[in-house]
Amino acid sequence: MSMFWSNTVRNISPYIPGEQPKDRKYIKLNTNENPYPPSPRVLEVIRQETSGDLRLYPDPDAALLKNALATMYGLESDEVFVGNGSDEVLAFCFPAFFDPGDVVSFPEITYSFYPVYARLFGIGYETVPLNSDYTVDFGSFPTHSKGILIANPNAPTGIAADLAEIENLLQNHGDKIVIVDEAYVDFGAETAVSLTKKYENLLVVQTFSKSRSLAGLRIGFALGNKNLVEALERVKNSFNSYTLDRIAIKAATAALEDREYFDETRRRIIRTREITSEKLKALGFNVLPSKTNFLFVSHNRIGGKELFLRLRNDGILVRHFETKGIENFVRISIGTDEEMEILAERLKVYVDSI
Amino acid sequence: MSMFWSNTVRNISPYIPGEQPKDRKYIKLNTNENPYPPSPRVLEVIRQETSGDLRLYPDPDAALLKNALATMYGLESDEVFVGNGSDEVLAFCFPAFFDPGDVVSFPEITYSFYPVYARLFGIGYETVPLNSDYTVDFGSFPTHSKGILIANPNAPTGIAADLAEIENLLQNHGDKIVIVDEAYVDFGAETAVSLTKKYENLLVVQTFSKSRSLAGLRIGFALGNKNLVEALERVKNSFNSYTLDRIAIKAATAALEDREYFDETRRRIIRTREITSEKLKALGFNVLPSKTNFLFVSHNRIGGKELFLRLRNDGILVRHFETKGIENFVRISIGTDEEMEILAERLKVYVDSI
Repeated sequence: MSMFWSNTVRNISPYIPGEQPKDRKYIKLNTNENPYPPSPRVLEVIRQETSGDLRLYPDPDAALLKNALATMYGLESDEVFVGNGSDEVLAFCFPAFFDPGDVVSFPEITYSFYPVYARLFGIGYETVPLNSDYTVDFGSFPTHSKGILIANPNAPTGIAADLAEIENLLQNHGDKIVIVDEAYVDFGAETAVSLTKKYENLLVVQTFSKSRSLAGLRIGFALGNKNLVEALERVKNSFNSYTLDRIAIKAATAALEDREYFDETRRRIIRTREITSEKLKALGFNVLPSKTNFLFVSHNRIGGKELFLRLRNDGILVRHFETKGIENFVRISIGTDEEMEILAERLKVYVDSI
Repeated sequence: MSMFWSNTVRNISPYIPGEQPKDRKYIKLNTNENPYPPSPRVLEVIRQETSGDLRLYPDPDAALLKNALATMYGLESDEVFVGNGSDEVLAFCFPAFFDPGDVVSFPEITYSFYPVYARLFGIGYETVPLNSDYTVDFGSFPTHSKGILIANPNAPTGIAADLAEIENLLQNHGDKIVIVDEAYVDFGAETAVSLTKKYENLLVVQTFSKSRSLAGLRIGFALGNKNLVEALERVKNSFNSYTLDRIAIKAATAALEDREYFDETRRRIIRTREITSEKLKALGFNVLPSKTNFLFVSHNRIGGKELFLRLRNDGILVRHFETKGIENFVRISIGTDEEMEILAERLKVYVDSI
């Protein structure tokens, strides 16, 4: 600490991302990365873009990418916002829609970055407990909050709500902005994008990090009414004129164009998830129903922390959260079939030994 | 505007970057980009990095780049902060070191993004007029401010203060953080980095966008006491775990390694600047003494706006600011020798015709 720190810095509790140890080679199932590389077309476009033009600033509006997203989702380009990963897009939502003193509400168990953003921008928050089956309790968001933030599918549970529940929420809270973080939606859940035309209080946030295999390039986006997008643009243009670099803009656009590769890789991940889920259930694991590229699992004879540590010791990284209510779970990203077979074999050894 | 906008969004005035018109091919001297491409080694490294590994998140600490910067400047890696362009680094400084209600001071004429950041984070600011020769008046920063932010060399004047003035400022305001934005320092000014070991209230901010020809990749950094860097890390990790992508980290590191290319290109730019400066003086222009990759010039027989518009009409983009006190100036980035010859020819035509 130092005398020069602001009170803000003294009071925040930064988010801690999944570990990236360098001491040995791990099977890395802890940050929900895609086990498959980006589309070959994406890599080709990056090579083309690697030229002397990198001396020039990118288009501050990233119009190429916005137009491609707008076309894909049947929206206008002013209904599309892009940023340096969906983490940045979510961060911008806080000053865009909330002021210090406002309260935003979200589920008690969800992406643990949400309260971190709130504290950074001095915005209050209230959490809503999950139902006993770990689904989001859509009926209990407080009426006095200024906005609602949900992840759908939710993290780290992996459970998706259906569109009727989202629409119901939008109707019951028409006076509030509802931000739906769909980081994992492409692995089997229903996107709420179609509802953005009907509900001007809906903002949908997505990312290229998971289903598009581009975590390494940092590209996220938001879709919604142009007034909501304009608020995000105003924040972004008060923060950094050029949040997306030249390569990221081109690469993301190319990723959208290779629809076939996208569908093939997410189909494989879904299939691997279902196979793994069955195997773990057969070993006695409680496996929450996942519509994501990860499984959230517990076992009544091995604690979550122990499971995490034993796997780590065996060269497999998964994610464990100390959060109350989910201490017994670990979150396991879906890797290749081969990686998941090794995982299942290790888990069988642990289960057989107790 | 919309009912969902925060008061913050209603009150901010986003920064407007230099235009990037697409209607025709321009000689682009309006955003201080480097006329030379990045080092060939940088392009080679990007091609190597273009692999399936882009599916993986970058190192959230960007240790490779921090270590390279630390080595270059004789610092420890915890005295180095990196971000998505120096605009992002500067943005993070506001919540890191100032709270709503605090006042930060900076020169009245300087990088016009500073007041924009302040408004985004709800922080007050006071400006200090320049001296009549457009130099910064180091004696007049208010004692009641929480911090001082200066660009050295200053923008858009291009004028550099010497290190003794900076050190004097640090001593006179030992109770305040002093942030020195050195975006243009590599074109002939003295960096204050050496003073970071002696003054724990000094933070130096630099960028790869100008002297390293990497505006298109978005890489900036800050150097200073580890407590100051820790404050920035806490803000960054409350905003976005991975602000620098895999390619940017590798490319920036490679750019640092090619010292020879760096020295050669900046030497060429300085030489072109001096030749251009002499030519414009001979045409009757008032040319402020520049230590940057741009010239800030006025002419007592042609207004700044008119100059800007005539050049634009002739296919040359420069930057004009409507800001009081500098309306008569235009800012001209240093391009190649050929581009600057065309510029000087056009200016001669205007001057001869009046």
